[in-house]
Amino acid sequence: MFDMNLENIRVVMVSPLYGGNIGSVCRAMANMGLSDLAIAAPRKTDEGETRMMACHSVGIYDERKEYPSLAAAVADCGAVFGTTARMGLYRAHAATPREWAPRILEMAATAPVALVFGREDNGLSNEELALCSNIIQIPTTEEYSSLNVSQAVMVTCYEIFTAAGVYAPPEEKSPPASHDLRERMFAMWRQTLLQVGFMSEDKSDHMMMGLRRILGRGAYTEDDVRILMGMARQTAWAATAAQKLNERAEDPLVEDRV
Amino acid sequence: MFDMNLENIRVVMVSPLYGGNIGSVCRAMANMGLSDLAIAAPRKTDEGETRMMACHSVGIYDERKEYPSLAAAVADCGAVFGTTARMGLYRAHAATPREWAPRILEMAATAPVALVFGREDNGLSNEELALCSNIIQIPTTEEYSSLNVSQAVMVTCYEIFTAAGVYAPPEEKSPPASHDLRERMFAMWRQTLLQVGFMSEDKSDHMMMGLRRILGRGAYTEDDVRILMGMARQTAWAATAAQKLNERAEDPLVEDRV
Repeated sequence: MFDMNLENIRVVMVSPLYGGNIGSVCRAMANMGLSDLAIAAPRKTDEGETRMMACHSVGIYDERKEYPSLAAAVADCGAVFGTTARMGLYRAHAATPREWAPRILEMAATAPVALVFGREDNGLSNEELALCSNIIQIPTTEEYSSLNVSQAVMVTCYEIFTAAGVYAPPEEKSPPASHDLRERMFAMWRQTLLQVGFMSEDKSDHMMMGLRRILGRGAYTEDDVRILMGMARQTAWAATAAQKLNERAEDPLVEDRV
Repeated sequence: MFDMNLENIRVVMVSPLYGGNIGSVCRAMANMGLSDLAIAAPRKTDEGETRMMACHSVGIYDERKEYPSLAAAVADCGAVFGTTARMGLYRAHAATPREWAPRILEMAATAPVALVFGREDNGLSNEELALCSNIIQIPTTEEYSSLNVSQAVMVTCYEIFTAAGVYAPPEEKSPPASHDLRERMFAMWRQTLLQVGFMSEDKSDHMMMGLRRILGRGAYTEDDVRILMGMARQTAWAATAAQKLNERAEDPLVEDRV
């Protein structure tokens, strides 16, 4: 539904220092369905490292736009979201990327929305933060709150991508097994385990309690339960066949025939 | 609540190729409150790059444990979560890190839980995936599903950290403004704008509709609304003062005194 809106979301890097980080940002953007990269107040960086870290997303780097300042990079944006790990001044107005994501997508329906990421060494200046209409703060431990810039881009874009609902979770997944199906499976194993002599009738309730816990923990889906049922069925068949062979072996008439 | 359980979560890198990625993994772990790093079947990597990318989290690298194989690295784990971008064989049993996170924390209460990340070039082999009790698949676009290994670590650890509820969101945040407070603010502006002659009484309802939309959009919190009320109050005061000065200026008695 929000697929189109992702096109309206711009990642703005302010004066990045390391080419490798620019490349990692491109790759994170590509993973999460974004493509509009702006670099504000660019510095000289190692382009070889950018290309190496970008891997197959280097097209995003090649189509980046460069601007003399942050103000210029966000001039056409309807909303500007700054990221910061710093406490104090702006902390009171900050929210997490998960909290902001739906609003970012909503806003991106009508105008470009900028996500602004600061320098590796100094983050965003107070003047740059003042240009931001909203502040994003990524949850971290208090002990180490400074994220690598490309990791900050990844977490932010991941939350937006996830909120956009573009991602289709695995489809062929087997549905959870019903209570009934699980009970049938346990009943089959009970029968089989009696038959192979793993337990006697008088101990069977106690043994099955343990087995129910073990098998029940591992078998979530219909597929899981059907695999365990197949095992029980096959074991019972093999035991019966062996028994019959045994009976024949003990049968004097059979011996005659051998 | 789950703070302690984070200590029981182990990040296992299988044969990483690039020292920089190992360092970035350390930093992501530190950001998200993890510290147990294992490297299975290690290869020779550039330690200088590791230290550079790890920044202040290099202690995690220094305390890493190395194992000859993935099996050895996860031998004491109660659950082993493998990560893969590949479709097919294991896709049916995969779930997203957000879906798995509560279960990972639950399991980590009683035994170490491993999060396994494959080689930069080849991911995890089928044999290694078979060692995993559960599969994590990180949501991405279909077009570019291959994440940098440290980014995959970040997204996975971020989801676990977030689910653990360790992060305390900004506390001093002003509460959302109540409907009443907002209405009082609009009433003050109405009065002020009439007083300064911005609008006449007969146009005021129409003008206020526009202003309510504009101010209402920007002013979410009590603090926001109080700032706007202060502006209205001060504007009204200044207008009154100017008016009085004006009246005195037009008063012949005042002129006499000048």
